[in-house]
Parts: sequence; structure tokens; C-alpha cells
Amino acid sequence: MSKSTKQLDDLFLEGLKDIYFAEKKIIAALPKMAKAAESEALAAAFEKHLHETEGQVTRLEKVFKLIDHASRGKNCPGIMGVLEEGQEITKEYKGSPALDAGLIAAAQAVEHYEISRYGTLMVWAQQLGMMGAAALLNETLQEEVNTHAFLCRLAETEINHVAKVA
Amino acid sequence: MSKSTKQLDDLFLEGLKDIYFAEKKIIAALPKMAKAAESEALAAAFEKHLHETEGQVTRLEKVFKLIDHASRGKNCPGIMGVLEEGQEITKEYKGSPALDAGLIAAAQAVEHYEISRYGTLMVWAQQLGMMGAAALLNETLQEEVNTHAFLCRLAETEINHVAKVA
Repeated sequence: MSKSTKQLDDLFLEGLKDIYFAEKKIIAALPKMAKAAESEALAAAFEKHLHETEGQVTRLEKVFKLIDHASRGKNCPGIMGVLEEGQEITKEYKGSPALDAGLIAAAQAVEHYEISRYGTLMVWAQQLGMMGAAALLNETLQEEVNTHAFLCRLAETEINHVAKVA
Repeated sequence: MSKSTKQLDDLFLEGLKDIYFAEKKIIAALPKMAKAAESEALAAAFEKHLHETEGQVTRLEKVFKLIDHASRGKNCPGIMGVLEEGQEITKEYKGSPALDAGLIAAAQAVEHYEISRYGTLMVWAQQLGMMGAAALLNETLQEEVNTHAFLCRLAETEINHVAKVA
């Protein structure tokens, strides 16, 4: 297929590969973030999200199946950059009272990245008439939105306060 | 300052440097995205956001001044990764009816990155009692939220339809 004939279904497939790669990297990163977290509530939130993320990978594999394509990722510089910033914080703030506030900020950037990608993919699936795929993508999108909201509450009620007064 | 004594004000300063660097990179990327866009409405949206972004940089410089620190960026792998994905799309979809849908998706990922960072910085500023800084950061946050919403409407009403049926 020449470049000039690429259409929305190509974008959809490439976006799917991008987020599949990203989810695998997130699954590798979350246990490290849970281990680094000082707050038990934050560690538990990361562990809960790890299980959710495993389910999200399974959902993506169902979407690949719906479009009759092998589940395959492609290098996604966006998530790599966002995760790298999280790793920097873990390293630089180890033992600091502000570590958890930094970890939450890093996790929220990851959630925003995913919300953006799943939002786009869901709308594209709808416009391509793939309602089954759109429903699966929307399930994950709602989980990401909920995780982001939970992290916001945790930051505002507990973590940042500790970072400030410790 | 040793690592273990780093606190929320350190995170705040580092976050400020991160988004200052990011905004400068976005100012460099937006004219290219406007030039690449097929739709006049999308090109106009990118140009409008370029002017907004210049104002956002000025606001960040005011925040640096409020904390008595020189305006300085620091390398931000997150935005570099997100912008790299946009550049890939511009290259791979040149001349394709789906180019604009891809450009919008890339721009939405940038907006989400910024919404995440400004949201975090605004909350940290509030918790540090820096209400002037929080107000400036919130002004930019609202602009980013509005830009994201506008791009969503543009994608749903015009761009993706062209990508699908062309």
C-alpha cells in the first residue's frame, strides 16, 4: 500500500499497536512504582491498576482479533518518554517525603497519555463502524478515567500534604 | 541539598522547568503541524494555539519570577516522545486523506500531556500557598482544556469523516 492511500483504518491499526506496546511497558513499570511508594494506599493503587492493565491488554487482543490482525506492538516514543520521567523521579526523590507526590504526578501523566490514545481509538472505531471494538476500548477508557480521578483524590487528600509538611 | 531532603517546592520547580522546555518545543512544532494540515480549519486551530502557547510561556516566566528563579527549561523526555509520534504521522501520512485525523490525534496527546502537567503544578502551587502562581497556572490549564475540546469537536464533525470516505 503506497503512503498516499493510507486511511483511517491504517491509523486505527497503528494506534492499536502503539497502545499495545505502551500497556506492556506500563505492566513492567507498575510493580517498580508500587515498590517505591512510601504510602500503602498509593502502593495498593498501583497494584490494583497493574491487574486492571493486564485486563486491558486482553481487551486489546480481542480488538486485534476483531480486525483479524495478530496482536503486535510497535515502538511508542510517547510512553517511553513519559515513563522515563517517572523513573527519574523515583531515583532523585528516593527517601524524600515528596517521593509519593512525584510518583503520583508521573502516574497521572501515564493515565493522560492513555486517556488520549483510547479516546482517539474509540472515536475512530465508531467512525469505522466497528461498534464491538469501540465498546471494548470504551471499557478501558472508563477504567483509565477512574484511575486518574482516584490518583487526584489521593494526591489532594494525603500525599501532597505529607510532601509539604514532612 | 541532599536528595533525601527534597520536598514539594523542589518538585514544583522541576515541574515548572519541564513544562517550560515542553512549551518551547511545542512552539517549534505547531507551525509545522499547521503547514502540514490539509483542512483550513485545522491549520487555523494550530495557528491560534501557537499564539496561545506564546502567552503561556510568558505566564510561566511570571511564575518563575514569583519564586525568584530564572526562567530555565530542563530536558523533558515526555514531550519529546509525544512530539516524535506526531512527526512520524506527518511523514507517513503525507498526501493521505487520513493525515488530518492523525495530526489531531497527535495534538490531543500533546494537550493531554500539558493538562496533566499544569493540573499537577496548579495543585502543588495551591498546597504550597502560592495562590498567585496557582491562578496563572490555572489560566493556562483552562486554555489547554478548551483547545483539547475544540480539537475533539473538529475531529468528530469534520476531519475523521474525510479520512474515512476519501
